Amino acid sequence: MSEEIHLSVDAMGGDFGPRLCVEAAASFIAKHSNVRITLVGDKAAVSSCIPPQADLSRLHVLHADQVVDMADKPSHALRHKKNSSMWRALQLVADGEAQACVSGGNTGALMAIGCHLLKTIAGIDRPAIAKQIPTARGSSVLLDLGANLECSPQQLFQFGLMGQGLARVYGKSEPTVALLNVGSELTKGNDIIQDTAQLMGDCADMHFRGFVEGDSLYSGEVDVVVCDGFIGNVALKVSEGVAKFVFGDLRSRIGRGVRSRLLAWLAKPVLKPWAEQFRPAKYNGAALLGLKGVVIKSHGGADAEGFEQALYVALEQASAGIPLKIQASLAAMLGAGLETK
Amino acid sequence: MSEEIHLSVDAMGGDFGPRLCVEAAASFIAKHSNVRITLVGDKAAVSSCIPPQADLSRLHVLHADQVVDMADKPSHALRHKKNSSMWRALQLVADGEAQACVSGGNTGALMAIGCHLLKTIAGIDRPAIAKQIPTARGSSVLLDLGANLECSPQQLFQFGLMGQGLARVYGKSEPTVALLNVGSELTKGNDIIQDTAQLMGDCADMHFRGFVEGDSLYSGEVDVVVCDGFIGNVALKVSEGVAKFVFGDLRSRIGRGVRSRLLAWLAKPVLKPWAEQFRPAKYNGAALLGLKGVVIKSHGGADAEGFEQALYVALEQASAGIPLKIQASLAAMLGAGLETK
Repeated sequence: MSEEIHLSVDAMGGDFGPRLCVEAAASFIAKHSNVRITLVGDKAAVSSCIPPQADLSRLHVLHADQVVDMADKPSHALRHKKNSSMWRALQLVADGEAQACVSGGNTGALMAIGCHLLKTIAGIDRPAIAKQIPTARGSSVLLDLGANLECSPQQLFQFGLMGQGLARVYGKSEPTVALLNVGSELTKGNDIIQDTAQLMGDCADMHFRGFVEGDSLYSGEVDVVVCDGFIGNVALKVSEGVAKFVFGDLRSRIGRGVRSRLLAWLAKPVLKPWAEQFRPAKYNGAALLGLKGVVIKSHGGADAEGFEQALYVALEQASAGIPLKIQASLAAMLGAGLETK
Repeated sequence: MSEEIHLSVDAMGGDFGPRLCVEAAASFIAKHSNVRITLVGDKAAVSSCIPPQADLSRLHVLHADQVVDMADKPSHALRHKKNSSMWRALQLVADGEAQACVSGGNTGALMAIGCHLLKTIAGIDRPAIAKQIPTARGSSVLLDLGANLECSPQQLFQFGLMGQGLARVYGKSEPTVALLNVGSELTKGNDIIQDTAQLMGDCADMHFRGFVEGDSLYSGEVDVVVCDGFIGNVALKVSEGVAKFVFGDLRSRIGRGVRSRLLAWLAKPVLKPWAEQFRPAKYNGAALLGLKGVVIKSHGGADAEGFEQALYVALEQASAGIPLKIQASLAAMLGAGLETK
């Protein structure tokens, strides 16, 4: 039997209170017999959401008085929310009691408290938010998705290293890395992009493939796509917006008249599994990569299925020991003085 | 009968030589009896592409020795390509002979030569590339799409004014304007975004709606979405990438087996008009907004249908007199000392 994994959940994060994530946690442990979950939050509120059939030997509640609000500034949360569900859930990972923490709460606060309690891996200045995105050839890793709105070439380079580490866990033995840019030609982009390309190109441990444009994100040309958090956030959200628009338009067409509805019903065996693939819940769960522990951010508006997916990402990364793997690969490179080609 | 409109076409621009745009031009004048087109480029090459049935009384060829290459730096084109098809096509607009110019060539060079020959409207520092994008509620204007990778708050503010002008032409009487940001909360984004929001919010002539995130781009919440050229370029290309991925995946599913093919064939009356809507050719043609003349950039890889769409955008903007309208509305505002609320 596989090793037991203990996950901590900030049960008060997210837009809908504890109900959805408690439901997701109960369902998750029923599917994964090696997982134990601690739900952190208001004990009465959280306990009342636990479904009667849940296996209480692997689902615990840890009380926390405070909640980090979505509007809280990270600095405020860091100073005044030491008794919050988010802080305590992260503390369990910092103390080595849990192997990963999942929260649907305030991203800035999660980043700030995460950095404070878990610290960043040696060689990493700031964590980046990373996510696996579906592509025509399988999946790629995209980072940063919004943790760092402005990045130095050194930071972007570090993101490349971390993204490589994550891509390896997703089964790419020699992950390729590219920078998201406004053109694929070598002269394109601003100074930061150009300097980053230099750093990446000079690194013998990175399979750098130059620049990719936005339309290549989903073609799966490269395994890791690096950009600053502003660009990454826009790219990810625009993607969601396009998918929503395209599918919404199809639904509105199908709604128009009996004939369309009949045709759509007939085509359901093709259309359903297809549309299924692009549901946001299937891709929920982004990693705060670069911390000395696994911290997964779930979308604040995720439903129970989405939150379960975030738990799955946490389990996957904790089982693979992602932070240790990134740490080891960075240490080896730093030890070799970031060997250049 | 409507006034005659004369369009100039850089027939050597684009990835596929003159054939596609000549074909598109011939087809376009057949549909629009008030349009005359001058094809600028290598006389022999261009003439040989003209279909035999074309109305030669409204389709002329103007010889140009040189071609601006896709790899030419704007400064190089500006200094050494005065006899290029792009330069001459723009010259026709600068001389008042043509009312609009369409090119599928090097964007940077088009921008540089366009600024040099046509000049920018008073009050506008740099042109922006703007495009109408489809939304759940009709269409919105998105700018800048790549002309200015880094923008000052003043520039972004000017983009808002120009976008408003364009949106009015597309039938929005009181266009609303928003800034593309990483969150809709007022505190989100970097200093440039924050300072731009201040400028826009203080302007009595702008219906500023604050920030929108990437997923709102296609919901049509606002009529004009402003961002810098890096973000805009990524947003637009990511959108194309997502659409391509989603439709490509559907095609691959339909290809799998007789049953799927039959179902898809049955559903064609619903699926076809739906997919039709999202073909990139339908949205080809971006305006270099802020110049004293109409200049339309066609996608370098556009097919003949796409190029015709770019010609249509040129006709529409020339007929509406977009540059004059933007100029007048800016002059009124500048005259009123950019009246603040």
